[in-house]
Amino acid sequence: MFIESIKNQKIKDIKKLNQKKYRDKSNLFIIEGEHLVLEAYKNNVLDEVLISVGYDIDINITKTFVPSSVLSYITELENAPKVIGICKKIENKHIGNKILILDRIQDPGNLGTIIRSSVAFNIDTIVLSEDSVDLYNSKVLRATQGLIFSMNIIERNLIDFIEELKCNDYKIYGTSVKNGKVLKNIENSEKFAIIMGNEGKGVESNILDMCDEYIYIPMNSKCESLNVAVATSIILYELSR
Amino acid sequence: MFIESIKNQKIKDIKKLNQKKYRDKSNLFIIEGEHLVLEAYKNNVLDEVLISVGYDIDINITKTFVPSSVLSYITELENAPKVIGICKKIENKHIGNKILILDRIQDPGNLGTIIRSSVAFNIDTIVLSEDSVDLYNSKVLRATQGLIFSMNIIERNLIDFIEELKCNDYKIYGTSVKNGKVLKNIENSEKFAIIMGNEGKGVESNILDMCDEYIYIPMNSKCESLNVAVATSIILYELSR
Repeated sequence: MFIESIKNQKIKDIKKLNQKKYRDKSNLFIIEGEHLVLEAYKNNVLDEVLISVGYDIDINITKTFVPSSVLSYITELENAPKVIGICKKIENKHIGNKILILDRIQDPGNLGTIIRSSVAFNIDTIVLSEDSVDLYNSKVLRATQGLIFSMNIIERNLIDFIEELKCNDYKIYGTSVKNGKVLKNIENSEKFAIIMGNEGKGVESNILDMCDEYIYIPMNSKCESLNVAVATSIILYELSR
Repeated sequence: MFIESIKNQKIKDIKKLNQKKYRDKSNLFIIEGEHLVLEAYKNNVLDEVLISVGYDIDINITKTFVPSSVLSYITELENAPKVIGICKKIENKHIGNKILILDRIQDPGNLGTIIRSSVAFNIDTIVLSEDSVDLYNSKVLRATQGLIFSMNIIERNLIDFIEELKCNDYKIYGTSVKNGKVLKNIENSEKFAIIMGNEGKGVESNILDMCDEYIYIPMNSKCESLNVAVATSIILYELSR
């Protein structure tokens, strides 16, 4: 198929996927660039692709060729990619034994980096609170480096979800500078969930109160706290031992 | 003192400090917001401040009061801060025993986050290659959360600098996925330098060849690499034990 104009309804609908409300309504999201598109294809979430005329990629899926002006119209990147993919959101109901819970993370780079580290250190499921940065924000997708498709990520009311975990014998970890146990001394648990919180405000206090144990990363007193993606990654690294 | 207009030469000169070439020429840089300004003041690098009329901060340094339009004119932030400080660049000649070398880091958020983690995990000096993102870029300064003033950071030709370190019995660490030694098995050295590299390209090969030992962070094979600020922080965390 070939579409030439940005006035085409299909192109207008795809551009709307830059906005969260249209992603929520359609259960679709867009990804930009060949690397992410190929990752989506491998993971069976790619619905269709727009490809710049004169370019091609070797995948067996509905392709629409468009002039680069159409890709520039859709993208929010400074340099339009040669390929834009439309993906369907898929949620896996199986949550596994190693869970990372994120309370109101706001920075897309932080969320993307945390997803990448979670794949590296064998987390099974990431649970986002309802007021987190949108997972399908293009900056989040880029920061994951394509690993979004290798991680089960769900959105839940955290209080209800943590109560459910506690009924199922998961050990719940929070972090605390004051009363925490040094990270290196945390014993391995078969089933656990780690709760990390908002960049400025941390984890909401009524959620933090639900933890069974608090982790502390020893550091120089000049530094009050680490970047949340760094702190999360260090904890995941240590617990993956 | 009070300056009302953005046409004032002093204000024009301060605005120019948003550009690297003027920072290099003047050996000055600007910081935005009360938190960073107070940190600069505590660390004796603050030269003077611009303060929004009607606001004040309790420091004993040359103050110039300006309307908020002047602060909006100078800042590159969406919301103008109430305080902008002008700082002098200061370089400490003493480099210490624990050194972090950064080869061509490009992302300001990554550099800022690495500086923050370096303070947390007791690095003495950070050495930047000559073609790194500028340390005094406002995004770097913000990502350090004020810890820029708690770290000695210098810029050097890395090959010359590493040769000097080797003559002085520093152990030089690089990272390698293929031939690396697992991070947890690295023994402590009294004097060491860790070399981390560019986001996409890693450390230049002729620099990597100068290392005495290579570190490997074990991770799931689905993940090719970690974000550079995360990888650096995990290594610093582990070596600070």
